[in-house]
Amino acid sequence: MNFKVDVQEFKLAVINATRFAAAKSTIKALEKVHCHIKDGLLTVTGYDLTMGYQTSLAIETMDGDEISFLIDSKLVASYLSKLKTTDVEVETDGFKIVFVSRKAKLEMMTETANDYPSIASEEDTIGTIKIDTELLKSLISSTIYCVSSSDTRPILRGELIKAENDSLAIVALDGFRVAVRNEPIKTDDVSAVIPSSFLAEAVKILSDDETELKFKKRMISVKFGTTTMFTRLLEGEYPDHVRVMPTKFVTEAVVDRKELIDCLERAALLVNDRIKSPIRITVGNGKMSMNVKTSIGSMNDEIDVDSSGESIEIGFNCKYMLEAMKAIDEDKVLMNFAGAVKPLLITDAKKTNRYQTLVLPVRLS
Amino acid sequence: MNFKVDVQEFKLAVINATRFAAAKSTIKALEKVHCHIKDGLLTVTGYDLTMGYQTSLAIETMDGDEISFLIDSKLVASYLSKLKTTDVEVETDGFKIVFVSRKAKLEMMTETANDYPSIASEEDTIGTIKIDTELLKSLISSTIYCVSSSDTRPILRGELIKAENDSLAIVALDGFRVAVRNEPIKTDDVSAVIPSSFLAEAVKILSDDETELKFKKRMISVKFGTTTMFTRLLEGEYPDHVRVMPTKFVTEAVVDRKELIDCLERAALLVNDRIKSPIRITVGNGKMSMNVKTSIGSMNDEIDVDSSGESIEIGFNCKYMLEAMKAIDEDKVLMNFAGAVKPLLITDAKKTNRYQTLVLPVRLS
Repeated sequence: MNFKVDVQEFKLAVINATRFAAAKSTIKALEKVHCHIKDGLLTVTGYDLTMGYQTSLAIETMDGDEISFLIDSKLVASYLSKLKTTDVEVETDGFKIVFVSRKAKLEMMTETANDYPSIASEEDTIGTIKIDTELLKSLISSTIYCVSSSDTRPILRGELIKAENDSLAIVALDGFRVAVRNEPIKTDDVSAVIPSSFLAEAVKILSDDETELKFKKRMISVKFGTTTMFTRLLEGEYPDHVRVMPTKFVTEAVVDRKELIDCLERAALLVNDRIKSPIRITVGNGKMSMNVKTSIGSMNDEIDVDSSGESIEIGFNCKYMLEAMKAIDEDKVLMNFAGAVKPLLITDAKKTNRYQTLVLPVRLS
Repeated sequence: MNFKVDVQEFKLAVINATRFAAAKSTIKALEKVHCHIKDGLLTVTGYDLTMGYQTSLAIETMDGDEISFLIDSKLVASYLSKLKTTDVEVETDGFKIVFVSRKAKLEMMTETANDYPSIASEEDTIGTIKIDTELLKSLISSTIYCVSSSDTRPILRGELIKAENDSLAIVALDGFRVAVRNEPIKTDDVSAVIPSSFLAEAVKILSDDETELKFKKRMISVKFGTTTMFTRLLEGEYPDHVRVMPTKFVTEAVVDRKELIDCLERAALLVNDRIKSPIRITVGNGKMSMNVKTSIGSMNDEIDVDSSGESIEIGFNCKYMLEAMKAIDEDKVLMNFAGAVKPLLITDAKKTNRYQTLVLPVRLS
């Protein structure tokens, strides 16, 4: 079979599929990228039994045959990225593949696709969300840092996506902090916990204007253009994030986010994985002062803030505070202190409720 | 003592000095960066007994004292890079150092400089070369890839710098290939073999318009502005590179360098550290065709060249050929073939002799 395909499209499909192919599997075929040609479409698939990626590219071909084969994706992607042409002609008989571009000809072996498992069978769709792709990426990016990296509670390795009454919430929490994004959006009522490993890949790959999320009983599929990504869901009860949010505050401070990040980054130089002394934050009289003292050295700093309520002194994990601030894409943030030993709630200064970030304090000695 | 210093200058000095500080030494002080203040100058030094870096920065100070101390260079450089101000005020008593920038204050411990060895004593200068800094960087960058990485002949771990009759040559060779750059330049007659580890660092650090190389019996110093880098020389006889250059050729081909590099890069995908099949190059009738066949796959390609002489078929290590071509900063190169089992000489197409690169062929089966 001979066909002609766009070099950039094919390269991107192969690179993306590789992200979903198994790193190591007892089914060797899953470590490769699967190509299938039928009816003028080249479908490229990467799959590891848990999650997968599949995209279809329009190709020019005179042949009507159907053919499947597995490719060494690293070699194919490298070769395509070194081609200077827009299109490449491809010849394949299922055992080898030959790329022809002007006078350059590359031939490599392929493998038969007989051992490649069929993609997880379709379940019924329970609910659908259509969402602006950039918004979806922002929702994931600004919360995923709070996903737990520990295996003690597997459900916390995922993010909760919960939609009801035309409001969408995406939640991550790890026992020390919570990140919530709320967006008004026309949607079915659905709820699912999606592995963060899937979301981390999805965020890199998502493009196009609109993305469609299809919720099924044990799966979710994420579709844009001619590309579909899918994953099994995490099973279990996700903690109720609304219940832990403090509602009464003793001190409020509106802070310039970039200015605070600068201070926190300098403070973070004095802590590391072994040395975890908290940053001591004092708020009152329009000032926020910060102090860290570790065996490496000590730091003092102060910024102007718009504060109200009582003066407060409270300690935080410097890294957690820095990550929380970096994830909020607003110039001004509102820090709502409920007390020196109570969780801090960070929202955007306009109180739109779009961002709700909670950080537990660290007891000061 | 209090002083004020430019943040960017201090940061750069500390980063550069760190490159020359010992990674691990029985003299712990050598793992740190040395600071010395006297007469309105802050001198920053990194040294590992073999090579060193020293630069002097003008500082603003009211104190007339002399003081030396050792700093944790990574922390200082990180902190300086996170400051948003042009200058920083520094307070030090030799035991701790405090950086003050607006309201931000960072205090860290320093160490006394008592154990820091004095820099290798000055030898008499035998000869001097003054050279345009960018030219010097280009001479090093375009030859250093040929330095041997093997320890069997330590002298080949360096580059020969040889100046005579107002002509400067810089040479690297590893037994399989040779790279020579020749430049007309007004110079003393000198010759020295300089460790490539030093040259690799020097090339990153060199700036300013002019650099002065001072050749001594066992050392070389490289000076620009207020910065000096120095190293011990490699001792021994460097192979005579002029003697190995072929002078009679059977085939010549003028080649578009970028076009050839594109082909070689695609071919290089089929070889690796284990699979070293040569690239087969055939030249004749205005064509250069290339062919590689390995267990990964096979590649054929062809480009137009301006060839003369007999047709020739010859094999090369693909990686060596690629590195040779990448190091020559000319649009067109001249490939001078002396025969199918004789070294290939590559020069610039204008035959200026500025570039002379030799690559040994690989016997074709």
